[in-house]
Amino acid sequence: MSNADIFLGEVIGTAILILFGAGVCAAVTLHHSKAKAAGWVVIAFGWGFGVLAGAYTAAPLSGGHLNPAVTVGLAVDTGEWSKVPLYILAQMVGAILGAVLAYLVYFAQFQANADIKNAQPTLGIFATGPEIRKPWANVLTEVVATVGLVLPLLAFGRNDGIGIGRIPGEEAGIYGSGISILLVSLLVVGIGLSLGGPTGYAINPARDLGPRIVHALLPIPNKGTSDWGYAWVPVAGPIIGALLAGLVFNAAF
Amino acid sequence: MSNADIFLGEVIGTAILILFGAGVCAAVTLHHSKAKAAGWVVIAFGWGFGVLAGAYTAAPLSGGHLNPAVTVGLAVDTGEWSKVPLYILAQMVGAILGAVLAYLVYFAQFQANADIKNAQPTLGIFATGPEIRKPWANVLTEVVATVGLVLPLLAFGRNDGIGIGRIPGEEAGIYGSGISILLVSLLVVGIGLSLGGPTGYAINPARDLGPRIVHALLPIPNKGTSDWGYAWVPVAGPIIGALLAGLVFNAAF
Amino acid sequence: MSNADIFLGEVIGTAILILFGAGVCAAVTLHHSKAKAAGWVVIAFGWGFGVLAGAYTAAPLSGGHLNPAVTVGLAVDTGEWSKVPLYILAQMVGAILGAVLAYLVYFAQFQANADIKNAQPTLGIFATGPEIRKPWANVLTEVVATVGLVLPLLAFGRNDGIGIGRIPGEEAGIYGSGISILLVSLLVVGIGLSLGGPTGYAINPARDLGPRIVHALLPIPNKGTSDWGYAWVPVAGPIIGALLAGLVFNAAF
Amino acid sequence: MSNADIFLGEVIGTAILILFGAGVCAAVTLHHSKAKAAGWVVIAFGWGFGVLAGAYTAAPLSGGHLNPAVTVGLAVDTGEWSKVPLYILAQMVGAILGAVLAYLVYFAQFQANADIKNAQPTLGIFATGPEIRKPWANVLTEVVATVGLVLPLLAFGRNDGIGIGRIPGEEAGIYGSGISILLVSLLVVGIGLSLGGPTGYAINPARDLGPRIVHALLPIPNKGTSDWGYAWVPVAGPIIGALLAGLVFNAAF
Repeated sequence: MSNADIFLGEVIGTAILILFGAGVCAAVTLHHSKAKAAGWVVIAFGWGFGVLAGAYTAAPLSGGHLNPAVTVGLAVDTGEWSKVPLYILAQMVGAILGAVLAYLVYFAQFQANADIKNAQPTLGIFATGPEIRKPWANVLTEVVATVGLVLPLLAFGRNDGIGIGRIPGEEAGIYGSGISILLVSLLVVGIGLSLGGPTGYAINPARDLGPRIVHALLPIPNKGTSDWGYAWVPVAGPIIGALLAGLVFNAAF
Repeated sequence: MSNADIFLGEVIGTAILILFGAGVCAAVTLHHSKAKAAGWVVIAFGWGFGVLAGAYTAAPLSGGHLNPAVTVGLAVDTGEWSKVPLYILAQMVGAILGAVLAYLVYFAQFQANADIKNAQPTLGIFATGPEIRKPWANVLTEVVATVGLVLPLLAFGRNDGIGIGRIPGEEAGIYGSGISILLVSLLVVGIGLSLGGPTGYAINPARDLGPRIVHALLPIPNKGTSDWGYAWVPVAGPIIGALLAGLVFNAAF
Repeated sequence: MSNADIFLGEVIGTAILILFGAGVCAAVTLHHSKAKAAGWVVIAFGWGFGVLAGAYTAAPLSGGHLNPAVTVGLAVDTGEWSKVPLYILAQMVGAILGAVLAYLVYFAQFQANADIKNAQPTLGIFATGPEIRKPWANVLTEVVATVGLVLPLLAFGRNDGIGIGRIPGEEAGIYGSGISILLVSLLVVGIGLSLGGPTGYAINPARDLGPRIVHALLPIPNKGTSDWGYAWVPVAGPIIGALLAGLVFNAAF
Repeated sequence: MSNADIFLGEVIGTAILILFGAGVCAAVTLHHSKAKAAGWVVIAFGWGFGVLAGAYTAAPLSGGHLNPAVTVGLAVDTGEWSKVPLYILAQMVGAILGAVLAYLVYFAQFQANADIKNAQPTLGIFATGPEIRKPWANVLTEVVATVGLVLPLLAFGRNDGIGIGRIPGEEAGIYGSGISILLVSLLVVGIGLSLGGPTGYAINPARDLGPRIVHALLPIPNKGTSDWGYAWVPVAGPIIGALLAGLVFNAAF
């Protein structure tokens, strides 16, 4: 994979992921949306199928990481760190682009927010936040949830022998076939359903930080705070979790 | 694929898609339905599994496009436009047929609509409509949502190397295996969950225009308006989105 | 496949299907159930994954029809009718066995029904019933819904060339791989979501008649009527639909 | 597979299963959780995708049983009992570890339970319990539900000929490919939806006993009883069900 392919793949794939993910949060949050208040199962499946759409699109170009935690976990596994900055840069660009696209899809709804008294804050559409604000407990939640993502992902990459292999000739890919991408997307649905309750499951620094920047910059009526005081948690937690998952994986497999 | 096969495949496949799709909208909308008010997740999965049923049936005959936006996106990709009118004609015929079939399934419920005071308008069962009527914002929603459909679809078609290839000898197919059809159907579930809030996600001109014609013609009690003033939006938006997705795909992949 | 294998496979597979299907109807209907009133999406997925469990178990023995409508549709396709009575007999035995198993799972709940004033009738746990009782409209619903099941199923069986083939050496199988069984189960989920609103989607004569017999015979407190006047509809509708689907399939494919 | 691999695989896989499973029960039960009261469908899919995550991770090491009932069912099938104690020991260790991890994810929520008057008992997050306490009826529920799990699982393992085979050279594996793991996880979703109403579907002695021990030991505010009087039911029922399923399978297949 050339650097240009990696960059393009991660930008496009992460943009699609965040388009779906921020989109589903807008869908259940904003007034004048047909999915208003449609519930947690909608959020979890919306994010999961965003992974499916984004990873599938990006897979032949970049392997479809879409997440610095995935990139870091694979780097711990393979010992190959040279392309990590390129992946993370592209993921951030893609996450920003995707958040803008979701904003465009719900443009009329965001504008209508101006006319709603006591409008809901809009940050939850873009970035995660804790139900109970206890930084180290919130970090712990993100660490364990990210281990729950990255450890199975790394195992998927090793499962060549049972038909879910890496792309032949690929040194750090995780998707050997469409089945793997489907399984990963359902894994993400499962993390949302099971482990998303306390913090909204960032499990991906780019997923949180990119859209939070977009929230800060866009002229959304009644948008409320961008809560920068919490922003380090969904960065630190997933990176720690990815390092842990990589170490456990290398020890066990 | 012969022209007769293409026509037959797209008619049957699109009819099945719309039977399921209009069916699920009837199921959650009409009184005296066991799924009355069952929520957005039911609608999104109903449409998605309609894609699964229709595309699977049509795949060996026509490749299972079922959607002018898909046909246009593939034409931009391959440069082969000669069969586009045939595909679109068949998709329109199929969409009309499917809407009539859904009407027959819910015949008793539609008739009972006559006895319900302040009956809900029935157009939402057949065609899409915006929560906030701002034509260019609505078009924008459909454009981005259709890019979210067609760009991954085109990538699926290229992913031969990782096991999700085109049908061998097939120049414009998108389904290389059952897995691809499953992934596409879940992709459509995801688009519904995430991007359907503002306009009800046509993302397919035939899906909207065919059933809208059926709504206008059928003798449904208390059926309300067919809202022809909006009908251009779910045609123009998906076509623009398909052209965009094709151009992005050709540039990036 | 020997006659003994076919019989055993269809008995076991249909029993599992009805165990899950009647089970999920009990789960959302009966008091003192953790899934009480959990909604239509639960019913549709419960039945669909019952198909997955039953068909998967039965596939190597009998091909996993589990439904006289599927057996008849395949017979129209292949012209081979000699084993149809054996299949249907086994499916009826299996459906009766499965309904008894579901009764045992919810035994304490059924007994508690005795103490509930104005207890809900229990027939809906075992057999289907219409929301609006108009026999020919109800038959029409079942006919179209069964076409929506059997036509894609028959197409699945022909799709050898794209990886979803029949079992090699198999003359009337529908499951060439685990993927096909998954797709069929999701197809059944889709039919439930989309087309189940008016009559509760029998789409399978054995699924309705077998458990209805069990309902009539079992000593369930406050069980209410077994509604034999409606029992012909979910038998006739699916058989007509299967014949129609077989004829359309043979003409088109 | 070496004894060390089996032990490690079952510990890690079962820990992931219980992390997701206890996690989803915490998610819908505890206050200050974004998934509070999100319903039965969330619980069933959360547990099912926990199977997906855990089995996928463990498959190359241990075959991914994660459940003494699965191990016993396979032993009845193969006649090979020598490794059963090792599997069960590892599953118990993994279940305990997973319950602790779920507790850490929801640490702030568990602590906040101290401030809630009439707080809900927390046992339901860790272990199962009956809606109607009738031991032998509860055992019967668990027996039939476990047959509904293990019989299809054993059939999956035999379905080599249709593409869902055991791992080549593997004597007691159940996952020949990613597809099998997906099917098993959806099977578990189905069991939850359909058969979980009366007792909360342990269908796995380790899944109930391990987290129950953790509940008894952890310092959770207002945690309520650990209900040891019921603890034998979700052990005995699944083991009896597994033995029955193994016997039926050996007789029929």
